[in-house]
Formats: sequence, C-alpha cells, structure tokens
Amino acid sequence: MTTTVAFIGLGAMGYRMAAHLPKHFAQVYVWNRNFAKAQQHAQQYQSQAVPLAQIADADIIFSCLPTSQQVDEILQQIQPKAGAIWVDCTSGEPQAARAQAERLQQFEVAFLDAPVSGQTIGAENASLTFMVGGDEHAFHQARPAMQAMGQLIQHVGHSGAGFAVKAVNNMMMAMHLCAATEGFSTLKAHGVNLDKALNCINASSGQSFITQHALPERILNRSFPLTFALPLLAKDTRIAVDLVHQAKLVTPLMGLCQSLIQAAAQQQPADSDFSTAAQLYESLNKIKLE
Amino acid sequence: MTTTVAFIGLGAMGYRMAAHLPKHFAQVYVWNRNFAKAQQHAQQYQSQAVPLAQIADADIIFSCLPTSQQVDEILQQIQPKAGAIWVDCTSGEPQAARAQAERLQQFEVAFLDAPVSGQTIGAENASLTFMVGGDEHAFHQARPAMQAMGQLIQHVGHSGAGFAVKAVNNMMMAMHLCAATEGFSTLKAHGVNLDKALNCINASSGQSFITQHALPERILNRSFPLTFALPLLAKDTRIAVDLVHQAKLVTPLMGLCQSLIQAAAQQQPADSDFSTAAQLYESLNKIKLE
Amino acid sequence: MTTTVAFIGLGAMGYRMAAHLPKHFAQVYVWNRNFAKAQQHAQQYQSQAVPLAQIADADIIFSCLPTSQQVDEILQQIQPKAGAIWVDCTSGEPQAARAQAERLQQFEVAFLDAPVSGQTIGAENASLTFMVGGDEHAFHQARPAMQAMGQLIQHVGHSGAGFAVKAVNNMMMAMHLCAATEGFSTLKAHGVNLDKALNCINASSGQSFITQHALPERILNRSFPLTFALPLLAKDTRIAVDLVHQAKLVTPLMGLCQSLIQAAAQQQPADSDFSTAAQLYESLNKIKLE
Amino acid sequence: MTTTVAFIGLGAMGYRMAAHLPKHFAQVYVWNRNFAKAQQHAQQYQSQAVPLAQIADADIIFSCLPTSQQVDEILQQIQPKAGAIWVDCTSGEPQAARAQAERLQQFEVAFLDAPVSGQTIGAENASLTFMVGGDEHAFHQARPAMQAMGQLIQHVGHSGAGFAVKAVNNMMMAMHLCAATEGFSTLKAHGVNLDKALNCINASSGQSFITQHALPERILNRSFPLTFALPLLAKDTRIAVDLVHQAKLVTPLMGLCQSLIQAAAQQQPADSDFSTAAQLYESLNKIKLE
Repeated sequence: MTTTVAFIGLGAMGYRMAAHLPKHFAQVYVWNRNFAKAQQHAQQYQSQAVPLAQIADADIIFSCLPTSQQVDEILQQIQPKAGAIWVDCTSGEPQAARAQAERLQQFEVAFLDAPVSGQTIGAENASLTFMVGGDEHAFHQARPAMQAMGQLIQHVGHSGAGFAVKAVNNMMMAMHLCAATEGFSTLKAHGVNLDKALNCINASSGQSFITQHALPERILNRSFPLTFALPLLAKDTRIAVDLVHQAKLVTPLMGLCQSLIQAAAQQQPADSDFSTAAQLYESLNKIKLE
Repeated sequence: MTTTVAFIGLGAMGYRMAAHLPKHFAQVYVWNRNFAKAQQHAQQYQSQAVPLAQIADADIIFSCLPTSQQVDEILQQIQPKAGAIWVDCTSGEPQAARAQAERLQQFEVAFLDAPVSGQTIGAENASLTFMVGGDEHAFHQARPAMQAMGQLIQHVGHSGAGFAVKAVNNMMMAMHLCAATEGFSTLKAHGVNLDKALNCINASSGQSFITQHALPERILNRSFPLTFALPLLAKDTRIAVDLVHQAKLVTPLMGLCQSLIQAAAQQQPADSDFSTAAQLYESLNKIKLE
Repeated sequence: MTTTVAFIGLGAMGYRMAAHLPKHFAQVYVWNRNFAKAQQHAQQYQSQAVPLAQIADADIIFSCLPTSQQVDEILQQIQPKAGAIWVDCTSGEPQAARAQAERLQQFEVAFLDAPVSGQTIGAENASLTFMVGGDEHAFHQARPAMQAMGQLIQHVGHSGAGFAVKAVNNMMMAMHLCAATEGFSTLKAHGVNLDKALNCINASSGQSFITQHALPERILNRSFPLTFALPLLAKDTRIAVDLVHQAKLVTPLMGLCQSLIQAAAQQQPADSDFSTAAQLYESLNKIKLE
Repeated sequence: MTTTVAFIGLGAMGYRMAAHLPKHFAQVYVWNRNFAKAQQHAQQYQSQAVPLAQIADADIIFSCLPTSQQVDEILQQIQPKAGAIWVDCTSGEPQAARAQAERLQQFEVAFLDAPVSGQTIGAENASLTFMVGGDEHAFHQARPAMQAMGQLIQHVGHSGAGFAVKAVNNMMMAMHLCAATEGFSTLKAHGVNLDKALNCINASSGQSFITQHALPERILNRSFPLTFALPLLAKDTRIAVDLVHQAKLVTPLMGLCQSLIQAAAQQQPADSDFSTAAQLYESLNKIKLE
C-alpha cells in the first residue's frame, strides 16, 4: 500500500520542505493559496498540485503556515479521512494544537504539532529539527515523512508540547539576541574591537547560536538578510509569554524581552529580518554595531 | 637569555595554569598568600616557590586573583624591574586596569589586562582563551607565555578592553543562564519532557553554551559542582553594568539580569556554583528543573 | 413606580456596599452563595434575602464577585427581565464584559462593567469611585443606585472600559508599591531614617497613594492588615498585561511588575494583604522596612 | 551679631530661593558664574553681588548647582572661615557629600547635603522641602536660613543621607512617570477616555504626584514646559542606581526605569522637560497621550 503525503503552505519553508517528499513517496500532493506556486512546485519537484478538497485523501497531511489561525481556516474547509495524520509545522499556539487535536479526533484523525527549526537552509538540506507534540503512535507513523525533511525528529510530549518547545526556543533566541546586542553595544562604546571580542566570546561561556551566526552573518556585516521576519518572532515571544501567564510563572527576562522585540517590530518595516531588532538598540544608544 | 616567568595567585585557576609554565620556561617563580600552596606547586610541577620580593625580578609576571582590589594590594608591595610585563588574568575592572597600567608605566613596566575563559578544565588542558587589553608590543612579547596556557590568545584593544570583554562575556552568560532557566521552567510547568526539549533546542536557534553545558551537566542532573562561584559572577555582572553606566547606555536586559544574579547570590551560600542561580527561579516558581 | 435593586455577592466589599441601598430604595434584594450572610445582611440593614431566581425580577442588579468567571456562572443561572440593568462591580476582565454585554443584549438587558475603588473603608462610607464602561443611557439610569454607594461615578467608555481602567489603576498601584519598596530598601541600606525620609517624599514629587497610605499604615508599622488580598492584585496585574498584549504595546515596567507581584503571590499565603508584596523584596535583600 | 548668608548658583531654582533671604538676613551675598545674573539679583532683591572670594566670609553658605562635580570645583576655589556651615542644595551624590564633609571638617567647616524639592514654584513661594544629611548641630544652626526658603526642613541622617533621599525621591518619581505613561498608553489603545480615566485614578489607589500634576499639566495638554530637564532626571536615576550597587541590592524596577529614562534622554534634546520621557513610549507605541 502506498502512503500519500500532502503539503499545505508553500512559503519560504514549505516550498523547500515539500521538495524532498517526492524522493521518498510515490504520491505527493501540494496545495497553496496562491495556486500558481503549487503548480510551479509540481513542475520543479514532481509533486502534484491538487485542489484543497483532494488533499483530504492523503494519509499524512503537512501544513506549514504563518499562524495557528490560518491553519484553523484550512481545517474548516477540509475533512481528512479517518486514520489520517495531520502534521502541523506552523510555529503555532499550544492551546490551538489542543483544540485542533480534539476536533480532529472525532473524525479519527490524529493531529501532531510539529514545528521545525533550521531556517530555509535547513529546509533545503533536509536537516531540520522537528519538535513534536501529540499522540505517540501517530508520531511513529508520521516519522518517516518527517525524516524525509529533517534530521532530528523528536517527540517532546502531549498535544501542544511541540509548539511550546518552539515558542520557548524562539524566545530564548530573542533573549540571546538582545543579550548580544546589549553586550556588544557596551563593548563598542568602550572602544573594543568587536570582531576580536566576538572571537573570544565564541570561544567562551558567552557563546550562543546568535553570537555564532546572527552577529557575524547578519548584524556586524550589516546584511540583515530576510529569512525570518521580525513580526513572526514577536508573535512567537507572545506565545511564550502566554504560556508563562497560563502557568502563573515568574519570568522577568522573558517579559522584558517580549516588550523589546515588540518595540523593535513596531519600529521596523514588516518585512524586516528578526536580526534588525538590534537596530532598536542602535537607535536608542546611537551606536552602530559594525 | 632566559625569560623568567612568575605567577601570583594559585587558586583553582592559577594553580592549574602555572602548572604548564615549567614545560616552556626554565625559570618559573610562583607565589601564593597561603605559601604552603606555592610550595606544593613547586614540588608537583618543578616551579620555584619564592618570596613576593623575588617575584619582582621576573620578566613576565602573571597574577590571577579574585578581584582588582587584591591585585592593587600586591602591586603596592612589589615593584617589577624596568622592561617587565605584568599580565593580570584576574576578571578585573577596566578602570582598575587603566589606573594600574598608568602607575606601572612610570617604572617602564607594561600592564596587560588578560582575563581568561575556559574554567578549570581549560586551565588544566592549556586550552584557555586569553582576551587581552593594553600595549600591543607588550602583548606580542608576553604571548608565548600565554600560549603555554591557552589556545586562543586575542588582543582586543587598549588597556581595560580585556577586562571589558570578560565582563561582557560573563554578563551574556548570566543572561543566557536566566533565559534557559526561565524557558525550561515554562516548559516544565506545561508538562514537557525537559531532556527531549533540550535536544531540540541544542539543535536549534535557542542554543547557547549554557544549554549545551550548564543545563545538562550542572542543573538538570542536580549536581551544581562548584567551579565558578556565584558571588564572582555577581561581581562580573556589576562590572558590566558599571561599563553601561559610564557610557550612559540603554541595556535593560543587562540591568535586570544583574538584579536577578544579585538576588540569587543573596539567597545562596557564598560557595555555591554560578549555576545555582537557577535555584532562585526554582524557589520563586516552586518548580524543580530536573 | 418603585425601582427594585438587587445585590449579588456580599463579600468584604459587597456587604458594606449593599448596606447603603435600603436608605435610598424601598425594595432591596440581596443574595450570597453562603446564604446565611444574606440573611444576616437583611436583618442588619433591612434588605431582603431572596433566592437567586427572584433576583431576576429586579430593575438594577449589582454583582460584586472575585472574578469574571464567577459572574459568568451566576449569569448562566438567572435571566434578568427585559429593561433591567446589570451593574458588575467585580474587578473583571474587559473581554468578559464585552461577551457578557453581548449575551445580555439579546434579552434587552444592559450590562455595565462598573468596578469600584476605595477599599472597605470607602464601601463603608459610601465614598467609592465607580469607573463605568458600557451603554451611556443605561449608565444614566443606574447612576442613582451607584450614587447611593459612591462619590465619583464616572463613565469612562464603551463596554470593558471600566474594567480596563480598574486593571490599569491597580497595575499602577502595584508599580508604585514596588517603587516604594525598592526606594525605601535602598535608603534603609544606607542608614537613612525611613520615617523622616517618608515625610520628605510625601511632600515631594515621589509621592503616591502608596507612600501616603500603604507605606506608613501597612508596611513600616508591620501591620499588613488584610483588606485586599495579594492574589487578587496578581490577577489584576495579569488583566492589565493581557490588555497590553492584545494591543501589542511596549510596556516594560508593567511586565516586570506583573512578574514581581506574581513572585510575591507565590511566596505569601493566599490570605495575605497586597502590601506583603514588600516582603518579597525584604527576603531578597535581607532588609526589613521598619 | 549678624549672620551673613551667601548663595552660590543662581539658576532657575537658586535665583528664586535666594530672593527670600534678604527678608530675613541683613547681609546676603550672592555669586554666579555668569556674574551679570548675580548683579541682577542684587538689584531686584537687595542681595549683594560679591566676588567668590568674599563668599568665604559668610556664616552660612548655600550652593545650588547642577552636579556635585561643579560644587567640587567651587570648593577648590574658596575656603570658608572656621565655624561656617556649607549647605549644598544641589541634587548631588551621597559619596561626594561624605568626601566634601570630610575635607571641610579639617577647616572646622560643617557641610550639610540639603537638596530641595518643590520645583521653581516651590522656590518662588518659599514652600520647598529640604532633606538634610550631616551633623545635627550644624543642621539646627542653619535651619533658620533654610526656613526662609522652605516649609518642611527635615534632617534625615548622616552625611549623604539628604542626597540619598533626593535621588530616591526622583527615582520614584521617574518610576511613577513610566508607570503612568505605560498605563495610559494601554487605556488609549483600548479606546478609553483619558481625562475621565485620570479622574478615576486620581481618586483611587493608582494616584501619584505624577498623575495629579505631570499627567494633566504637562503631558495630556501637550505643553511639556521646561522646569526640570530630562538629563538631570537621568543623572538622579543614575545616582539612585549607584546607591543600589554600593549596597548590592535587588531592585529590578529601578534598574529598568533608569534604562528607560536614559533612553528617553538620548532621544530628546537636552533642554527637554523630564515629562518628555513620555514621548519615548509614544514613539515606541505610536500612541499619543492626549
């Protein structure tokens, strides 16, 4: 029996992710709101561009959209067949995952929240990390399809846990970004050579993914290439803070960081890379990180 | 002509650092306030335990003490010979470095602020990072002696720049520690498996030295081994915030983190590892990270 | 025609508020979950203790409960007659007010969110402030009943606006409480006489309701009398922060203060006065404000 | 025997303060760097404009300058006679007060740190508050001269205590300003009428000097009259945070507020009123408080 895999949402991530599926599955459906993009994908990667209704016939359905709200809209338009597994790679909201899982359960459809990290380069190289919440049996069934696109495929807990880990990961990344920007602004103000300081810090306990990548590749070289939009990071930090409020936790740094990322998102054009959050500090301190 | 190298301060770091010098230099003097420790070092590593006055005869004098104040006290007791280079590996204050450099300059002695990172394991393996501020000529002269103990030997700017980079590195590390603790407390409160979440985050953009090392090796396994005392981290964060104030900068996260580390240092016994700062959050949130 | 007024929820505030109504209205119904309290009120103040179903006959129905959720529960049990006005004095959630107003509108019942300030002493003296959101016509109709219990009866905007003003007022109060505690801890640490400092500050630009009342009457005299429970303040600060998130605003101090109040609420017993938030700082700083 | 009183520093505050002295003292010397201002004062108020050297002959010498550094400069130029009392009304640094007191003590001159609050209107009406640190005997001797200009003359502790209370007062005021701005931005974003909300809050527990005065008289009416410059407030908040660091205290809100005031001071022209700090939030949130 052949497994049919479908992919909904061919954005910067989805387009590249779905490209790997035809190498491993005979039948791969793709759909995109702007349908021309689905047709282009079909032509380029031997997937099949199908109407949304036909997506419902697939065994495993991936979705990768900007927000949980947009996934909800799609879910209201189609009803997957019993036994199907819906794998949502959106950076979504844990509460939405639980509601979606419950709703699909009545049709005997499993819902996995399975956000990914690794950015467009990881999507291209099939080296993404999948952090997955939801039913473990469904996870094992859907794993081969995820493995076609990723490297680390990790079940992290019940429904919503995948989204929670992603939101917290991105919040931590945002805190590291603010930390690096504040630290390097301080060094710049005191006349320290930033490239040499970065060498030291990347070899020391202050190292982070941000100091390793964002600082040299996006900020200090002033390129700020758009691969992950700042408003999406602002949304992720809000999801993280929502988790904090639901559990009545004390997390002062997260709250403050959310405020700063929000301020940066307010200041920058909507299509700015997340790394431009550094420019909020640059304008406040009148110091340019270069 | 033989270069004589001296080392003042045989604490957890200094004792291990000075152990490498006799492999590269014929004459190595060591001194420690508790002199028995110097004698033990001499016996164990073929260094020479000498009175403080004799240290003044060395060409290159290392010091590695808890604070700049303690370096000042030593400096008032001995006067190195003209042409000597003083290499201070203390995690000290940039302002103190400038004052010390100026004072020694009148005796034609160069002062380099050369704090190290890499912890005791790096001291043992001679894989430390030296971040060095001060005269470049003196830096090149003292480099071979630093290379005996370290791997990356980086000149980062004028006098005080080394201390500044170290203080900022440690402040960034402290922010990453708070970020990780807040993030993982949130995940724990939502029933996520922390080890699996850590797998994902270490493969993602939320990664840091802290998530890679402190979280699994010190916190989640509840070992909190004392290798870097929390009050010293509190001191370093204060130095970083002093730099911010001197330059009238806007760095909200650094200020808040300094406050939190201070609170943790107030709460914990003085001989607690820096990683016990996580326990401040644990007591506030009544959540144990394990 | 006689106006019948009803009052639901005879807690510390409601019991005292409802006491004024029989002086101005011939027919006053009261109801309380613990019904004995309603009967005691009837006996003491000439109100009538009636079953919840009978409350539905009143022209103006006041409710004063700990949370919007509890108001929702009551609303599901009774349906006021067409033309009635529901005046909710709970410190509730703006979103709940809008939902409640919409739901009641279909029965031609107006819903006003009308939280009060002035604490138990203001309830006793009928000197409360009512901050009212919702339909202006209904506001004018219900005003005489509010005037029986309050002094300043202020319409502040559409449905939810009253709750918003109350939440923001309490959040500001919480920030002032933290500000006072931090400031006076600093003075105490530097050996300043706190009572004399308070004299100065109350005559200066640092004055607030908190420095005027909470500091001398609750904190410095170590009485911490329970009149407004800390968990309720924590709830109010969460409502304020929710408003911030809904509007995607940048309010760093509010976020941080919410975190601190949350931490204090975690630390203190549930029946602690809001002023015991000062004790969080006292334990962190090992400084007693007295 | 006649008491000679001198006043150094005829700025917005000093000019008005010194105006009251000739009503109570026969001999009143005034001096100002821009000497024309001293001469104008003499003509207008029957004081005597004298050279700095002659100031040294006075029994009680007031100084009122922007910073402690400027007081230091004056102190190096004149040496008051033995038995004189120097009353410094600058909003200065506690550490400077202690150093100045010690230095003057060797000439048998007492130094009181005696900053004032009440702004220019209080200076004009002789209704200032004096918060005074230093020797109590000297305080009692100098009190009549302070009473000529103020209403509440309060001794608060040893040398430096006056400056500490003033710095903390201004820091608290700054926190209240941020609190009010954040709170009212939130209300504005939710469509609440700000004037009506202000009515409620000024009658409630969220009241402060800021909500009573700065909000209606400076911010909501968009006048921002320059009576107390924002950079001076930034300096005061730094003094307060210095006190925190010296005592190793945990005061997260103060640190954050200092950062925000610093950011506002960076953004605004140097001659902006402190109330323009609200405009930092306005630009971050794209919300105008009116």
